[in-house]
Amino acid sequence: MEPEKYQKGMKVLRTMGDPDGKMVAESLKTIEELAPGLSVSVVEFCYGDIYSRDGLDLKSREIASISALAVVGSKPQLMDHIFTGMVTGLTKREIQEILVQITVFAGFPAALNALQTAREAFELWDANAAGKQE
Amino acid sequence: MEPEKYQKGMKVLRTMGDPDGKMVAESLKTIEELAPGLSVSVVEFCYGDIYSRDGLDLKSREIASISALAVVGSKPQLMDHIFTGMVTGLTKREIQEILVQITVFAGFPAALNALQTAREAFELWDANAAGKQE
Amino acid sequence: MEPEKYQKGMKVLRTMGDPDGKMVAESLKTIEELAPGLSVSVVEFCYGDIYSRDGLDLKSREIASISALAVVGSKPQLMDHIFTGMVTGLTKREIQEILVQITVFAGFPAALNALQTAREAFELWDANAAGKQE
Amino acid sequence: MEPEKYQKGMKVLRTMGDPDGKMVAESLKTIEELAPGLSVSVVEFCYGDIYSRDGLDLKSREIASISALAVVGSKPQLMDHIFTGMVTGLTKREIQEILVQITVFAGFPAALNALQTAREAFELWDANAAGKQE
Amino acid sequence: MEPEKYQKGMKVLRTMGDPDGKMVAESLKTIEELAPGLSVSVVEFCYGDIYSRDGLDLKSREIASISALAVVGSKPQLMDHIFTGMVTGLTKREIQEILVQITVFAGFPAALNALQTAREAFELWDANAAGKQE
Amino acid sequence: MEPEKYQKGMKVLRTMGDPDGKMVAESLKTIEELAPGLSVSVVEFCYGDIYSRDGLDLKSREIASISALAVVGSKPQLMDHIFTGMVTGLTKREIQEILVQITVFAGFPAALNALQTAREAFELWDANAAGKQE
Repeated sequence: MEPEKYQKGMKVLRTMGDPDGKMVAESLKTIEELAPGLSVSVVEFCYGDIYSRDGLDLKSREIASISALAVVGSKPQLMDHIFTGMVTGLTKREIQEILVQITVFAGFPAALNALQTAREAFELWDANAAGKQE
Repeated sequence: MEPEKYQKGMKVLRTMGDPDGKMVAESLKTIEELAPGLSVSVVEFCYGDIYSRDGLDLKSREIASISALAVVGSKPQLMDHIFTGMVTGLTKREIQEILVQITVFAGFPAALNALQTAREAFELWDANAAGKQE
Repeated sequence: MEPEKYQKGMKVLRTMGDPDGKMVAESLKTIEELAPGLSVSVVEFCYGDIYSRDGLDLKSREIASISALAVVGSKPQLMDHIFTGMVTGLTKREIQEILVQITVFAGFPAALNALQTAREAFELWDANAAGKQE
Repeated sequence: MEPEKYQKGMKVLRTMGDPDGKMVAESLKTIEELAPGLSVSVVEFCYGDIYSRDGLDLKSREIASISALAVVGSKPQLMDHIFTGMVTGLTKREIQEILVQITVFAGFPAALNALQTAREAFELWDANAAGKQE
Repeated sequence: MEPEKYQKGMKVLRTMGDPDGKMVAESLKTIEELAPGLSVSVVEFCYGDIYSRDGLDLKSREIASISALAVVGSKPQLMDHIFTGMVTGLTKREIQEILVQITVFAGFPAALNALQTAREAFELWDANAAGKQE
Repeated sequence: MEPEKYQKGMKVLRTMGDPDGKMVAESLKTIEELAPGLSVSVVEFCYGDIYSRDGLDLKSREIASISALAVVGSKPQLMDHIFTGMVTGLTKREIQEILVQITVFAGFPAALNALQTAREAFELWDANAAGKQE
């Protein structure tokens, strides 16, 4: 482990994730069970390295990530980044528009499936918010 | 042809394209030679419909488009949208960062090939700018 | 909305969809809930524009669509176009053969997964037909 | 080698290829140089097995193949099947329309790049035809 | 059917499949129901031809297959080849490492989804082994 | 920069690359020009992290990498890993067989294009070897 880069990655993850860090911790635990040491690579490389780079704000990075994930067609990761996108300031409508853009470059099936995932993510987000207000 | 939507599309294309519209006109002519009426669909659907939607600014739409095209791996269209991205206000560094993000979601080959295309686009852009200053 | 193109698109959709148009109406409602105005783009662009073009009959367009969707690997849209393919005159066997072709160009996994989707579509189609005969 | 299936495959290849079989022979020689025995697999499996199946005519199989290759984005094989498509009776316009369909399912980049390949294939085809008439 | 190649394919399938051949027989029956004759093509081409080639041992072929299936993103076939990979001698850890490699070339989503499939495959494998010991 | 991980990565790169490290140095310089700091990520993450993991030997990792790159369809990176694959002990024939496997999982176009790249890589390799013997 690279203590400095790991700390840097955890800092970004806390900025983009849930305030108490429970969901981030759970995600990393799940990844670690898939292959030993892999959660360390995710924190160090994805967040401590790539997401920590200068030259583009976090909100714009999430636009790029959501678009890429819609084209790749990977539902669980798209769901995660719709959440982190909203934490970094994207509105639901902006996320829908990012995904509507995809029709032009990857066709309607990729866009429609991603928009369906967004719909499910928005419902979960609202249910969570409602749960916290009670 | 849908006169209203076509006009709307041409207006967006002029905002995102070259000031005198020569490159846009040439692009549409090339597309029209590929299949009859296809250039009309591009103007009406891609620009008069999708790019004309509310809810996300043009610069953010270009972040999504550049990211999608890097994943799709389509060089000529990526080149075009690196140009229109710069017209809508993205810096070269921001475009590089959009493409570096791709390493996480689609791997290094997609990112490196897109960054190589960006490099060629930047050189062309600078050569054009130099040509105009003389 | 472009009234003329929308009407043209709805006409094609009625030719390819269910006789009473209930499934088409439901599909468009679902799409509209994914992003505002998107169902209009589907009707106008996909059906009023692309499917309404001259030069290739609807049955052949469905062969191309089913093949493309099998390669793209998008199950819900493949299911829809197996139904519309049968409405435009393709037999179950012909649809199976379109998908068997895919083994050569996109490998066995894409073909086998699409054939499994076809099997489920055929069962639904037969259940529907049986329901109507009663 | 499977003499029966190989003969069956060569028969289909002769139906779909050039009349004197020179181009087919050259293609198979090139493939054989890529990996020992691979040209036998191409003849036996692709043509002696898949293309020789009942239930769908050769012209419809080529619609499916051209569509799949446009989505896969593989230029040399798309070029070959545009030629064999024309031999089995598809017109240039029909091939353009198959590729225009792709915009809906795989986006404009895939469709435009395939249409550009088709344009080059049509020019080669016409040059060949002109050469034979002299 | 090509008796010789079919026998060759069944021999490889028995080497890579379950000792009593029940799962192989069931798999082939399922494939045959998807399209007539397709199970014969799978045995003859995939196993009697490709897997029976000289020049690379079965274990190394499974490394290539598992890697390809993780990139293609096809869960049922990946599951099957994780099983056959273990029969040909790959350890669970080696399979995890093959999939971790994918992060570099196809990104984290493809790798994480494949590792999740591997986890499910390992659990099934262990449950089967436990069932047999009782 | 993470000195320890960077050193680890450079050590693997020297094992897999050219003996005098000239090609590796040139490659990293080219990558660094594509985006600032990216060559450091390549060394630290791809080689210092992923390739340095336990549980799978380098030769097997290269089988997985070559297979993944053939499916992804990325020519320059496939070429690089055919070279590093040969340095880690894979024979030309074994590399051809890895790529022939791809026909089953991703279709003939992906396999044939990758085998063509392999052919070009082998010629370059032999030309280099001949150059050194003189």
